[in-house]
Amino acid sequence: MKILVANLGSTSLKWRLFQFAGGEERLLHRGGLERVNDYGAALEECLGELGRAGHVRGAADLAAVGFKTVLARGVTGCVRVTESVLEAMEAFNSVAPAHNPPYVAGIRLFARRLPGVPLVALFETAFYQWAPEAAMRYAVPESWCAAGVRRWGFHGASHKYIAERSAELMGRPDVAERVRRLYVDGGRTPVADPPLRVISCHLGGSSSITPLANGLALGNSLGMSPQSGLPQNNRVGDLDAFAVPFVMRTLGLSLEEVERQLCRQSGLLGLSGLSNDIRDLVRAAGEGHAGARLALDVFVHSARHWIGSALAQLGGADALVFTAGIGENQPELRAAICRGWEELGIELDPEKNAAVRGAEGCISTGRSRVRVWVIPTNEELVVAREVKRLLEQEAARGGAGESASAGAAGSSVN
Amino acid sequence: MKILVANLGSTSLKWRLFQFAGGEERLLHRGGLERVNDYGAALEECLGELGRAGHVRGAADLAAVGFKTVLARGVTGCVRVTESVLEAMEAFNSVAPAHNPPYVAGIRLFARRLPGVPLVALFETAFYQWAPEAAMRYAVPESWCAAGVRRWGFHGASHKYIAERSAELMGRPDVAERVRRLYVDGGRTPVADPPLRVISCHLGGSSSITPLANGLALGNSLGMSPQSGLPQNNRVGDLDAFAVPFVMRTLGLSLEEVERQLCRQSGLLGLSGLSNDIRDLVRAAGEGHAGARLALDVFVHSARHWIGSALAQLGGADALVFTAGIGENQPELRAAICRGWEELGIELDPEKNAAVRGAEGCISTGRSRVRVWVIPTNEELVVAREVKRLLEQEAARGGAGESASAGAAGSSVN
Repeated sequence: MKILVANLGSTSLKWRLFQFAGGEERLLHRGGLERVNDYGAALEECLGELGRAGHVRGAADLAAVGFKTVLARGVTGCVRVTESVLEAMEAFNSVAPAHNPPYVAGIRLFARRLPGVPLVALFETAFYQWAPEAAMRYAVPESWCAAGVRRWGFHGASHKYIAERSAELMGRPDVAERVRRLYVDGGRTPVADPPLRVISCHLGGSSSITPLANGLALGNSLGMSPQSGLPQNNRVGDLDAFAVPFVMRTLGLSLEEVERQLCRQSGLLGLSGLSNDIRDLVRAAGEGHAGARLALDVFVHSARHWIGSALAQLGGADALVFTAGIGENQPELRAAICRGWEELGIELDPEKNAAVRGAEGCISTGRSRVRVWVIPTNEELVVAREVKRLLEQEAARGGAGESASAGAAGSSVN
Repeated sequence: MKILVANLGSTSLKWRLFQFAGGEERLLHRGGLERVNDYGAALEECLGELGRAGHVRGAADLAAVGFKTVLARGVTGCVRVTESVLEAMEAFNSVAPAHNPPYVAGIRLFARRLPGVPLVALFETAFYQWAPEAAMRYAVPESWCAAGVRRWGFHGASHKYIAERSAELMGRPDVAERVRRLYVDGGRTPVADPPLRVISCHLGGSSSITPLANGLALGNSLGMSPQSGLPQNNRVGDLDAFAVPFVMRTLGLSLEEVERQLCRQSGLLGLSGLSNDIRDLVRAAGEGHAGARLALDVFVHSARHWIGSALAQLGGADALVFTAGIGENQPELRAAICRGWEELGIELDPEKNAAVRGAEGCISTGRSRVRVWVIPTNEELVVAREVKRLLEQEAARGGAGESASAGAAGSSVN
């Protein structure tokens, strides 16, 4: 069974092709295109590459295409992409303006180009379905909550990967198995005592931090929109909601312009006035650029804020995990984040920390009560696995389209 | 020297009259009026009460009136209230719509009724002037920050009182003295090692949490506006900024209606659908009211979030302090907030916790690495002390109106 996982950005298309056979999972191919302005042509190029590599000669070779979609009104989990799912995504376009519109447009292209191939979405919000209500609510009127104003949480595929892999590394196969079966039984697979408490830090172009209790998320630093939480590359992160009316009046900005600036000219780019890429900022800060220094300081402060919050919600931690572009590759930022935390049981080993980049490894000292890990994430693999599970469930039931997740009813775009 | 401290709400007027004589400070009188709709009449009633009590026979008996003002554009610290200060407050009316308009209107009434009596404002933002820049910035474009979109922090008078008093209780007179002299020397009074780390939790109709390092604030859960941070009585607390455009489009609300609902129908009231008073919610939750239970759970979750953040910023803590209406009087909520924190060094003694209400006392066990205190706050005393200091500074300089704080220039309203 070959499953293609496609990552659709507004100007990028990335993919990974997985093969599942005989209980083994294999990455067959990975590729990507940047600065895309003709998405149809990009899709042809993707399929051409897969063909030339001998993996996909035609649509019949693909069991499904999986998408790591962000959020939709009333739909979460892993579902067949139907027209009603696409409409539910469009209903939340203004919540995720940098994410939902390119996904919807891209998925429609895939549907036209690959008729008959199942298209499946794993929503990033899926991982937070069992988080405590108190962690997911804003103190807004009930009518707002009913409309969708609540914390959804994102990066679900990544944090799920970390939840499973960290449990394995911490010698807790029971917790790893609960995570693997999460979307099957809602986290009811039994686990032993004591509880395993992990803080998962996905730090990259987009960042979020999640407390994990026995593999289940207790919340996420990303709230209602992918613009919240830590400062993102060019998206704002946490911001007082009253800043919106304030700048509309004070700076005379329209609502649309406010949204645009918060999605495109904020985050690390806005703070630094220089770049949305942390590598540029580390370099510039080293050369004395004050804006770059400020952006890094705010990023580190915000990471400490959310890790502290996770520590409090969990009542302590057994492991702290860094993943994604920044988490895997920036030892100096990891050290800055964990600075002065010996009393909290967190102590990095400077040599181990400096040595681990883009690879799995423990970077804490032997004394550190909390084990600190670097674990490269693998979001696409999580998507592929869930897509495979959905197809198998459907086959077992003898038909497509009857997903277990709520809200997935509707006609297929295929 | 008699100093009247007036607390101006939109429908309330509360006051305390302090006497400073021979190195002693005495509370002479306290009173208050609720459900005020004629502020002029309320002021007459206040002055009438002070007169009948024999404390203030006329304006000449008052050295000054002090106000615990919230925030103003470009003005902080303790300053004479001039017309330009009032205008600076009005410039931030939309940041603090429940606070600034009644203060400005009320102060103008005092100025007309008590000509010649110095009117002095201690801004709630004053305490955060020395907080690290990384703790006070949002990741917004520079033009937004220049306009005033940054974390200001509030409840400065209360947290300053807690900083000083907790240092005394922790046997650190050096830190207490640094706090006392904060607005004189900007926190440069020398202190001994090790650093004293205190987490100050002001939980009441309005709530905020502040990490204190040697008496100085490292930040505050209240950000740009008094509507942020923990859920407030009827104000929202932290909210994804993208909820604002979302509800405008989805629910068809105007910007003004969004602001009104976030200031009046949110917070504990919005969550519970029942009441903005925690005492009502505790009672109703006990009787099985689901909305009241949810409101309490979200409040506790948010308090844990911000205490965890403070713990991380401080790298641990020596003391955790509860103050204000909820913090002083709700042992069950204190216990819920500190639940399961033994590994973090925080352990409440259930009997001590239950016994301390509205009084000073230690409520942690002997084993608890962090000492947990209840300390009734005294914001008005902090205001009165700073007003006195300003008057003495002016007298020493031989004239009024030359405050040390930035932006206070302008003609007096007196």
